[in-house]
Parts: sequence; C-alpha cells; structure tokens
Amino acid sequence: MARSFWKGRFLALLDYKTEKFIVAKNKKVGVLYRLIQLSIIGYIIGWVFVNKKGYQETDEAIQSSVITKVKGVAVTNTTESGLMVWGPQDYVIPPQVKTLTFLGGHCRDDEDCTEGETVVAGNGIMSGRCLRKDENSTGSCEIYAWCPIEKQFKPKGPLLKNAENFTIYIKNFIQFPKFMFSKSNVLETTDDSYLKKCRYDEKLHPYCPIFRLGEITKRAGYNFQDMSTFGGSIGIAIQWNCDLDKGYSKCHPEYHFTRLDISLSNKTIAQGFNFRHTRYFKNAAGEDYRSLYKVYGVRFNIMVHGKAGKFSIVPTAINVASGLALMGAGAFFCDMVLLHLMKKSDSYRQRKFEALKQFQSAQNI
Amino acid sequence: MARSFWKGRFLALLDYKTEKFIVAKNKKVGVLYRLIQLSIIGYIIGWVFVNKKGYQETDEAIQSSVITKVKGVAVTNTTESGLMVWGPQDYVIPPQVKTLTFLGGHCRDDEDCTEGETVVAGNGIMSGRCLRKDENSTGSCEIYAWCPIEKQFKPKGPLLKNAENFTIYIKNFIQFPKFMFSKSNVLETTDDSYLKKCRYDEKLHPYCPIFRLGEITKRAGYNFQDMSTFGGSIGIAIQWNCDLDKGYSKCHPEYHFTRLDISLSNKTIAQGFNFRHTRYFKNAAGEDYRSLYKVYGVRFNIMVHGKAGKFSIVPTAINVASGLALMGAGAFFCDMVLLHLMKKSDSYRQRKFEALKQFQSAQNI
Amino acid sequence: MARSFWKGRFLALLDYKTEKFIVAKNKKVGVLYRLIQLSIIGYIIGWVFVNKKGYQETDEAIQSSVITKVKGVAVTNTTESGLMVWGPQDYVIPPQVKTLTFLGGHCRDDEDCTEGETVVAGNGIMSGRCLRKDENSTGSCEIYAWCPIEKQFKPKGPLLKNAENFTIYIKNFIQFPKFMFSKSNVLETTDDSYLKKCRYDEKLHPYCPIFRLGEITKRAGYNFQDMSTFGGSIGIAIQWNCDLDKGYSKCHPEYHFTRLDISLSNKTIAQGFNFRHTRYFKNAAGEDYRSLYKVYGVRFNIMVHGKAGKFSIVPTAINVASGLALMGAGAFFCDMVLLHLMKKSDSYRQRKFEALKQFQSAQNI
Repeated sequence: MARSFWKGRFLALLDYKTEKFIVAKNKKVGVLYRLIQLSIIGYIIGWVFVNKKGYQETDEAIQSSVITKVKGVAVTNTTESGLMVWGPQDYVIPPQVKTLTFLGGHCRDDEDCTEGETVVAGNGIMSGRCLRKDENSTGSCEIYAWCPIEKQFKPKGPLLKNAENFTIYIKNFIQFPKFMFSKSNVLETTDDSYLKKCRYDEKLHPYCPIFRLGEITKRAGYNFQDMSTFGGSIGIAIQWNCDLDKGYSKCHPEYHFTRLDISLSNKTIAQGFNFRHTRYFKNAAGEDYRSLYKVYGVRFNIMVHGKAGKFSIVPTAINVASGLALMGAGAFFCDMVLLHLMKKSDSYRQRKFEALKQFQSAQNI
Repeated sequence: MARSFWKGRFLALLDYKTEKFIVAKNKKVGVLYRLIQLSIIGYIIGWVFVNKKGYQETDEAIQSSVITKVKGVAVTNTTESGLMVWGPQDYVIPPQVKTLTFLGGHCRDDEDCTEGETVVAGNGIMSGRCLRKDENSTGSCEIYAWCPIEKQFKPKGPLLKNAENFTIYIKNFIQFPKFMFSKSNVLETTDDSYLKKCRYDEKLHPYCPIFRLGEITKRAGYNFQDMSTFGGSIGIAIQWNCDLDKGYSKCHPEYHFTRLDISLSNKTIAQGFNFRHTRYFKNAAGEDYRSLYKVYGVRFNIMVHGKAGKFSIVPTAINVASGLALMGAGAFFCDMVLLHLMKKSDSYRQRKFEALKQFQSAQNI
Repeated sequence: MARSFWKGRFLALLDYKTEKFIVAKNKKVGVLYRLIQLSIIGYIIGWVFVNKKGYQETDEAIQSSVITKVKGVAVTNTTESGLMVWGPQDYVIPPQVKTLTFLGGHCRDDEDCTEGETVVAGNGIMSGRCLRKDENSTGSCEIYAWCPIEKQFKPKGPLLKNAENFTIYIKNFIQFPKFMFSKSNVLETTDDSYLKKCRYDEKLHPYCPIFRLGEITKRAGYNFQDMSTFGGSIGIAIQWNCDLDKGYSKCHPEYHFTRLDISLSNKTIAQGFNFRHTRYFKNAAGEDYRSLYKVYGVRFNIMVHGKAGKFSIVPTAINVASGLALMGAGAFFCDMVLLHLMKKSDSYRQRKFEALKQFQSAQNI
C-alpha cells in the first residue's frame, strides 16, 4: 500500500500541471495587454539588450600603466638669466640665484622678534634677535631665509616658442582583470623605424603613440602660443570602450584633449602652470647656495578610463527574467481593468474567481 | 476557409486570457499571503529603493586628478649640520657629506675578498683585493663605497616645529565618466584673493582647498608635535558621494584624515616617515662628492574615492520585477501551506488541480 | 448596507486566492517541465550562487596606497666614466659631461639658418647666424646646444651584476570603501627584526613585504642577467580577491610578476628600460655645466587590483527572482509544446482556456 502510495506521488510529480485560463472575449483589454507585452518586449530587446548591452557583464575596473617621454629642445633668452638651452631633461624657466643669508624686519627690541615665528611674507623665520644700530633707533628682526628673496617675476612673452614641435610619447598598457584582457596603444610591429617617425593621426595612425605638442593644444581647442607664456595644464584622456564580444581588434583607444587650467568662469585664477624647482651648489668655501627656478611649463595629466563588456549568462537571465516578471505585472494591471472598469466586470469576476459553492454544486450534480 | 482560420487565430490573440483562481475561504493562509506581500513591498520600497537607491544606476569608476602645493618655511639647527633653512622646495633633514673612497674588512688573502660581493652591512662592494701591511698580518678587504658610512642618526627633538603652520593646497578635479559629470573641490569664484587667504572649514568654507598642517593632524586624531620629530604619513581621503538626481550643487567633497604610519598594535615598527635623498657636487679637482640626507618629513597620501548614482530605468525594472517574482514565490509557499498543512487540504487540492476525469464528467453531463 | 459592503470587501481581501491548474496527464511534457525546473535550479544554485557568488554585493573600487624602498649597492666600471658606486639613491649609468657651447651646421649665409628652428638631430636650436671663415667658403649655422652631443652609447655587458641581490620593500595598504574594510600586505607583528630580515615566500612568509630582485625576475620568467645590461620593466601585480563573508584572515594578497618591456612579437623595439637624467654643477667661474646620465635600470610598475564580495540581500533577491521568472518562461514553453505539438493538444487547449459558452452551459444546468 505505502509503496504504491509513494509511486503515485512520484508519478503525479511528472504530470504536467498548467494554469487554467479564462478567455474573456474582451477586445479592449486584449489589445491593451498585447500592447503592454509589445512595449515590454521592445524595452527589453531595444533598450536593455541593444542599447545598454544588458546581455554583457561589464568590467569598469580598468588597470592601466602609462609611460611618457618628451622630445625636443628649446632656447630661452631673458635678461635675468641670459641665454639658456632646455632639453627634455630641463624644461625650467628663469633661475634666480639664492644664498643663505639674513634679512631684516622692523623691531624695537628682541621681544618684538618671537623666535621661530614665520615672517608673514612667508620667506623665512625670525631668529629672535633684534638688530639695531644703537639703543635708541628702530632695528630689524634677524630672519633666517634664502637671499635674495624671490622676485615677483612674470614672463613677458612666450619663452618656449619651439615647444610647439616637441613630441610626447605616451605608451599606455591596459588590462581588464575580470576578462583577462590586455592591450596597448602602441602598434605591434616589427618595423623599428615606424615608432620613431610616426605621428598620431586618428584615422591613418591610430596606434602611433607619438603626439606633437602643437597638435594636442589644437585639439584641446587652444592655440599653443596661448600657453607658451604662462604654461598650461592639458588633460589627455585615453578612453577604452571595448565590446569584447566583437574581438580583440575592435577595442581601440580614443584620445580626448582638454585644457584643465582654464575654468568655465571668465576670470581665471589659476591660468597657466608653474612650479618652483631648485638646484644646489657649493662654492669653493663649501658654503651652500642654490638656484631657484620658477618653472613655467606644460603639464600633462593623463587619465585612462574605459570599460569592457562581454556576454555573460547571469545579466542576460536577470534582464530576460525582469521582462517576464513585468509582463506578470502587466497582466495584473489588465485584470484590474477587466474586473473593475469593464461593463461585464461582475461576470468576469465570477468566472475568474471560482468560489467554493459554485464548485460544490458543479460537483454534486 | 484557410483565410477565415488565420483570421480567427489572429482575433483569438486579441482575446484577453486571464488566469482562473480558486477562492479558498481560508483566513489563515489569506492573512499569511497578505503579510508576505506586505513584507515584499516593504522590502522593495523601504530597503531597495529608499535605502539602497535601487532605482539608480551607479558609477563607481571615479576619475580624479590631484594637484598639491605646500607653502611654508622652516629652520633646523642640529650640531651635525648647523643652521639650515628649509623652504617648500627642500624639506630635508640632516645632511651627511660623503665622498667616494675605500673601506676595509677583515681578510687574510685576496681569496677572502670575493670580487663584486656585497658587504653585509650593505654599504659597498668588495673589490677583490686584500690590503695587508705585511705578509703575516690580517688585512682588510678593499671595498668600494661612499665614505664615511651613514651614521645611525636619530633626531632627538622636533626638527620642524614651524611646519604646523604650513599650508597644503589640494586641488581635486573629479569626473564620473558614465554620467558625463565633473566637479572640482575649489570654489568657482571671481574673487582672486579668496583662494589665497581662505582656510578650509567644513561648514564655513567647504570649497576652500587650503589646509593647515596642524589642523590636518588634529583631525587625524594626533598632535602635530608627535610627528615633528620622526615625521609621519597622513592619509587624506576625499570622498564624493553624489546623488545626481538631486543636482550639481548637492554633490560635495568630504575630507577624512587618518594617520597611516601608526599600526593598530601598540609596538609600532614603521612609525614616522623618512627617506634618503642625495645632492651631488664636484670639488675643484672635478671629483664627485655628495651630501646624503636622511629626510624626516610628513608624507601626504591623497586618495580620492566616490560614487555617483542617477535614475535609470534598467535597475528600477529589475528591482520591481524581482519583487514581483518573489511574490510568486510567496504564493507558491502559501499554496504549499494550503494544500498540505490545512484541514481541508484534500478538498483544496481537488479543486486547485482539475483532473481530466472530473473535467470530462462535467463536460458529459 | 454600505458598511457591510466594505466589510465584505475587506474580508474578501483576506480570502486566499490560488491559481487553478489543469492536470495534463502527459508524462512527456511533465518530464520536460521538471527537467527545465531542475536545470534552472541547478543554474541558480550551481552557477549563480556557488560559482559567481551571486548572493554577494561586490566592491571593485579598491583603494590602494603603495610605498616602496629599494636596498642594495652596486659598482660599475666603464672606460667612459671610470669606477662608480651606486647606492639606492643613485641607480644611474654612464654619465656624459656636457657644457653649454655652440655647434656648427652647413650654411652659405644667415638666411640658411632660420632663427629658432630646431636642428633635425634634435639637439639644439639655430641662432640664425652663419659662421664662415671668409665670404666665399661654406660655413656652419651657429647652434645653441649642450656640448658635446650625447654619444650613441650602448652598454656592452651587464653593468649591475650585483643588483640581483637588491631588495625591494613594497608596503601596500588597501581599502574597500563600500564595506569599510582595510588591510595591509605587511605582517602586523611586534617583532621589530622580522620585517628587517624576512624575504617574501608564498607559503612561509606571505606577509613579508621584502622581495629579492633576482627572485622577482625569476618569477616573471626571466633570468636577471638578461636585464642587467639594458635594464627592464617589471610589472608587479598585487591582487586582493576577498570573500569578506569568510572573515578578515581569509583575505590575502597575491603577487604576479610579469616583464613589461618584452612584447609578444619576437623582434622587440622597446626592450630594456632607460631614461636620461642630469646633474647640474657650476665651475669656479660660475658657468653652468651638467652631467647627463643615460640610465639603464629596472623599473617597477606596481599595480594593485582586487575586489571584495559580501552577502547582501538585494543581489540575492534579484538572482532568486530571476530564477523564478525563468521558471515561468519554462512553463510557457511547456504550454506551447502541450498545446501545439501533442496529440491531444486540442483537448488540452479546450480545458486550459475556459471559454465563455462552456462556462455558461455549466452554470445553467
């Protein structure tokens, strides 16, 4: 008995059970439901799958390494520093020789000169002594500082005219760790001379990693001469949007150039780019002295971003399933319309929801 | 005939078909199902949409560029190196002059001094020769090294007291490439002097990018004087959590400061921060010599992270759909309860699953 | 009346309504449906949950800071520069002394020497003057450049044999901001000497951050001696794949070493690694001169990536729900088979879709 009971149970599991539907011969709701179905299918296929590539797993955690080299030589000639030659190793502009000496500040006695207090101008620190010629005169606080103080120097004309023809070599190697995919922006060639002579061109040489400075500024929307006086900051964005389903060769770098030191508001505070740089020397007596350079230059800010997508069953299943579940919601909505807004809604409700009595009566005939 | 057949088929497609339900007048299961429905709706609305912002697409691949400038001057006075002034270009502490000479190590003959072998102390390399006064005495291996060897110097007191008032300017420009959104932590103002004089304050000046060193260490939970002897490493985390649905002006940077060179365990190994730095000189005879500086300083480690969210139909649909599908699971669970745990479960089962026979008998009446 | 009407409505809400199913005693479709169900359950549990950890929320936006220190000393001896000692502060190879003088280029008169034009060789810029011995002879364009021009020097043998025993200390601190989780690759120990003497070993010392250079190159698949002549570029990838459900102690760093300067194609263009580096001096007369070093070295490119996963209810719900919705699709597919491909499909269709007439006749008995 028990055995046949469990056998029956098991066989019952293999019976196919399918939901019973009521056919409501109501064209209005029927058309409404088909429209809802069509729009959900259209949304899933058109928007989710075609437009958003919802069948792909994406990796936005791009790993990138960048190596750059600048080539070019420039000459500057200012009255302050005389004729100077600048190679790629030393793009620095006008030097100011400084030695370690003492400077004065107004005081009456030592108490006016707090030891260790920074001088407001920011160039040194008070030693705590007041230097006076005699007891009655006003003196100067002794200050430790590099002398002479840096002059407020502003370049009057373009200092690095030739830099327009400088080239910058940008080697970018990227990885999408999730997909074990890696690529470089440098052509894999056996032709040694190509990577020495080529210049980047979007269509002709998309895998040549050498950029002319003038070309970069032009693409950023500025004239190079605008930057040759006060320097500038150029953002180079390398974008890798790769559809790995289309294969290795369809994953290309895109370059975007923007000038970063110009803000949107007209009056700019931080226009140009400069920094201070020192070289240290010792004189014959062994005393330290240094050359302080206020360097106006072009700063490159290379940013690499990108994402890769590749077919994966999980997001595909989730998106298909979300479409199916939304169709269930559509059916629920149409049911509401049918059962509450239609003329014969009572009749539909009676048929849709089979009550106990009705069932019993049908059974007891 | 065929034509009217297909027409009928097509019209049948426009008939609305709705599932037939059995009304089980069982309040227990009814209440259970409503509770399940309510908790799923509460979870979807309360947790997924309100708390987790499940209606938004997020971009966690924040793109960031950081420019920093340090301002301030300090003076050090050690017996080893005498009085020295340190500007922003040269925050380096005590120098040790070294020249390229030869050092000895114990040996008996040349074989004891393997050429090219590194001396254990790590300061030089053996030349392969054994220097002895005479044939019988013990000699020294000739070693190539910079002389004199670096002394084990530990600073005895705070070397950079004044650095507390140094300021650090941190310009941070971020981008969320997915949403084409970019912002900076610097106030966009036409008032030139503001960005020269302001100091960051969470409430008063949230867009002033200038931080006082003492303030930074205070916010990291340490006194600046703790770090002024052995240096330290400060992590500055800039966090951008932006809800782009609320608009550009509601996306603010948040700063968090932590001291990185102190580990959780009490006995710290790597407390402080120092590195070695050299300056090269030539004497009158053209011989190289160098100053080796063991530099104790404060290292800033600026990390930018953040994420942005913006309404998107795809995650919204997925989350709504997941709620709907879970309701289906709830119904399945309630069915199990109804069909197996209730008193009249057999009667319910009979009604829910309409068997063929029953159907045929009803049809054949 | 109205009150009892609403009461009835409310009580009706608490009636449990369950879908009515038709039992189709068709074992083929029944088995098919069970197979579909099993494969969906298998996919959700096996692939989505076990393999892909679909119950976890992931954070791929790893935050990382890296500090490195190199230790070791080497000696080079070339005929050009004589015996030199290189410590960690100065891994630079062969120096070439240069002074700022003038070089010639062929010309007939000043017009041939355009002022400011870069000389093709790239070493200097024309001054615009043509230097001729007399009016009739061919002269040379005056050029501003550092002299003498850099010689095309290629190292003939390994310059830094000893560097094999150099060590590199790599401290890596990571954070997963979404989970407020942070960890370091350095053992948290109170034993000061451990972090000075240990060497990394995958099994014995996984949290020792000191790597021998020779070991690194070996793991990258190359012999260190291959790189000791022309230098090289080594990629050190630190990977943190952390399952935070398993706890803090199960989140380990993994190191992968690859040589980056060797491309896949046999003929390599950029093999080795070198850069140019200058040191500036002044002679007794105060004239600038510089030593230009073409430095062959080993460049380390440290990349940190990783992701963390932690249980979260939202992705769990979405994945479970997607499985449920797909079962709905499976049922739809089986319905299609049952209603269109089976022998008795007409009979099934009649029963599944209860038409109005049939219903009315049953009601009117």
